[in-house]
Amino acid sequence: MINKIKRRSFIETSAKGMAAVGLATGAQLTSAKVNTLQKLFIHHVYFWLKKPVTGEVKAKFEKALKELVTIETIIDYHLGVPAGTSRDVIDASYSYSLLVTFKNKEDQDIYQPHPKHQKFIADCQDLWEKVVVYDSVSI
Amino acid sequence: MINKIKRRSFIETSAKGMAAVGLATGAQLTSAKVNTLQKLFIHHVYFWLKKPVTGEVKAKFEKALKELVTIETIIDYHLGVPAGTSRDVIDASYSYSLLVTFKNKEDQDIYQPHPKHQKFIADCQDLWEKVVVYDSVSI
Repeated sequence: MINKIKRRSFIETSAKGMAAVGLATGAQLTSAKVNTLQKLFIHHVYFWLKKPVTGEVKAKFEKALKELVTIETIIDYHLGVPAGTSRDVIDASYSYSLLVTFKNKEDQDIYQPHPKHQKFIADCQDLWEKVVVYDSVSI
Repeated sequence: MINKIKRRSFIETSAKGMAAVGLATGAQLTSAKVNTLQKLFIHHVYFWLKKPVTGEVKAKFEKALKELVTIETIIDYHLGVPAGTSRDVIDASYSYSLLVTFKNKEDQDIYQPHPKHQKFIADCQDLWEKVVVYDSVSI
């Protein structure tokens, strides 16, 4: 028990970012499922690139996305493409999906004017024909 | 070091779901940021409920969402509403957002016909006027 407490203290001290979003410590990982997303600010962006989307365009855009998600206030991210699913309700017409999570709206407000975000827009805005953003906070 | 190895083994054995998605063990949490989303299958659904969205409708829908996300193959989820942000590219017209993550497409394929998912659709489909789904896999 003392070991668990010591360990917990170590984790909370050394990984403030994860502790802040409620990630379970090792001692709590006996549960099969841990909900770490629910309290976060979810920023999901879908990009429709201008056709033709050449290999060169993909390489440039993916490199830019990977640089973008190094912005400090981002907790976690997913850089995606359509999954190949197909049903009436599914929109699989987009080229790229960018999902990023923030601790709260204030951290997202730091991301928006961040030089890396502004560079991403400046470098890539000519590549896309449409962008749709959905921001969500917990119910 | 032996303690770290033992602990890691314990975590990987007792929390297969989290280990499977690459969640860092306690020993690895010295890094400020851990990317756990990137390898996952992202299923993001936006619901536009029929107006007026009364308190009674909200209560019914939120209860149904909370039951839906107990489906076993879901790794993590976010039940959301528009975050109050406003820019040209932002669509804040939806009523609810449901973000769920799966280990892979196969786990999402278990979710789709799952009795709890079918019950959710049967109980709630009269509440919405539009649903848009975006499925994404890693680049």
